[in-house]
Amino acid sequence: MFGKIGLVGIGPIGSSLARVICRERLAGHIAIASGGIETLKRAEKLKLGDTYTTEANEAVRGADLVVVSVPVGASGAVAEEIEPALKEGAILTEVGSAKVSAIAQMQPVVPEGVHFIPGHPLTGTEKSGDAGFADLFENRWCILTPLEGTDLTALEKLSEFWRRCGANIGTTDPQHHDTTLALVSHLPHIIAYNIVGTAADLETVTKSKVIKYSASGFRDLTRLAASDPRTWHDMCLHNRDAILEMMARFLEDLAHLQRAIRWGEGDKLFDFFTRARAIRCSIIEEGQNIDASGYIPSARQSGIRRSLAQQTAPSPRHPQGRCQLDPSL
Amino acid sequence: MFGKIGLVGIGPIGSSLARVICRERLAGHIAIASGGIETLKRAEKLKLGDTYTTEANEAVRGADLVVVSVPVGASGAVAEEIEPALKEGAILTEVGSAKVSAIAQMQPVVPEGVHFIPGHPLTGTEKSGDAGFADLFENRWCILTPLEGTDLTALEKLSEFWRRCGANIGTTDPQHHDTTLALVSHLPHIIAYNIVGTAADLETVTKSKVIKYSASGFRDLTRLAASDPRTWHDMCLHNRDAILEMMARFLEDLAHLQRAIRWGEGDKLFDFFTRARAIRCSIIEEGQNIDASGYIPSARQSGIRRSLAQQTAPSPRHPQGRCQLDPSL
Repeated sequence: MFGKIGLVGIGPIGSSLARVICRERLAGHIAIASGGIETLKRAEKLKLGDTYTTEANEAVRGADLVVVSVPVGASGAVAEEIEPALKEGAILTEVGSAKVSAIAQMQPVVPEGVHFIPGHPLTGTEKSGDAGFADLFENRWCILTPLEGTDLTALEKLSEFWRRCGANIGTTDPQHHDTTLALVSHLPHIIAYNIVGTAADLETVTKSKVIKYSASGFRDLTRLAASDPRTWHDMCLHNRDAILEMMARFLEDLAHLQRAIRWGEGDKLFDFFTRARAIRCSIIEEGQNIDASGYIPSARQSGIRRSLAQQTAPSPRHPQGRCQLDPSL
Repeated sequence: MFGKIGLVGIGPIGSSLARVICRERLAGHIAIASGGIETLKRAEKLKLGDTYTTEANEAVRGADLVVVSVPVGASGAVAEEIEPALKEGAILTEVGSAKVSAIAQMQPVVPEGVHFIPGHPLTGTEKSGDAGFADLFENRWCILTPLEGTDLTALEKLSEFWRRCGANIGTTDPQHHDTTLALVSHLPHIIAYNIVGTAADLETVTKSKVIKYSASGFRDLTRLAASDPRTWHDMCLHNRDAILEMMARFLEDLAHLQRAIRWGEGDKLFDFFTRARAIRCSIIEEGQNIDASGYIPSARQSGIRRSLAQQTAPSPRHPQGRCQLDPSL
């Protein structure tokens, strides 16, 4: 599909891309660049690519597709480093979780004749690590945020690339992407970290075991707090405005609920919980329903051809019926 | 262990108790009472007990152990109904998730010579439903909140009963139980319902698909919102003060974090996330570590003898190593 693909950054996304590109034969040559010599050595040991370098511009030179998967905070520096080596007509994409910031850093640097099309695969898995796995994108959304005047042929080619990596394509504008992600991903992680802190502080002041008795509610809610702090530190700095806006909405709504609890407004609480539950159950019917780890089995591995039916079928780990059950605590 | 056990209420806890009492031969006779005739019929069809009645006082008459497992809001009325039929020397327990309220409703009604010992098994499973399963309490904490002047022989007998049901025994005072549960169970559920509401409202105002793109963060955080609204409505009304206190702490901490995000205090955020993550990982090493559904396999079924080692070993679904991995989103 491409002659040469340059992967700048070989973390969870980069390493998984390398694996699926190889499995699906999407490139004649995979060039891998990473600033971390240890990371690069591991990538080479895992045979993730054809060539390995610590110089990003070497990896992108002559590449038809360049995928930058580095922390959003580093995307500007990377863009400046690779700019002189980018090939006329090449497609350049980055996969950061905060599009407005990544675009602001990279777009001014991208030379004429290079198709810069930002995107973001919603992998959300804790299973990948830096070794990656080819199924990471299987049946997951990849949101593309094309900029004004984007070449449609290039856009379609990048979309086809992600489809062949197993992803479903969605397109939206960078601002809406950031607002959405702030709510469905960044804020949930912040909340999880926050309540863990609250519990730890309570243990300290009450000198008693609180977490020892942590019921499954606490574990479910705080699972996200096992994430890599670097990721969320990066998000808080680079998707700040959207996170603060969503946080404000969340806090307003929680204050509203707080008031209903204080005043013992039982009917209001029951109606609200009932409505929220119905909506939550509808999520389970959404295409991306997967288990707690964020992993969805490969359609290929499981021998099922990906189809709309499969995309909308409830996951065995999340049968719709689960919503009919009564968690006792 | 007991001649007759009277189970008042045959929901997730009551039905599971019936099964494990039968399996472990803890009673000569299991009497089941439920106000719901349909529920009672199902219990009879499932052969959960020896006798079935809609009259609670019939079920408890002559019982050596009486377990009241009804919504906390109903515990006072149940206490008044069964009071005349309670046997001298019987042990009376209830399993509500808000001890202070349940005790305030029941204690004044309990006659002299009946040992009233409140308790709360932290089952936290979405798998039980009203059919119950004998493993519900396996390796889970059962928190007893004995009152002043509780007979120690009766307390030890109730503790042994729960141990033989598979539970680990913890004791604390009702107030501390309620504060702890407010933080580790009630608040997490409220937060989950709340952010689902926030997302739904955002979809309405932006007329865009937000939940469609819900990343795993959102699904993990909102899994709890698939719970039965009745349960949490009941908790909000009957553990109100503790929930409001914990909510206030959570909101203060979140505002603190919000400020750090607004002012781009990267180091502070990184340190906080790192600390919270370490604590969250320690939870995974806690005794109650189980999968997202809150279910832990039976030591008996799996052929493993329950031991301290097993209690502290990481669950296969939550290997400690998972905390070393980098969730990409």
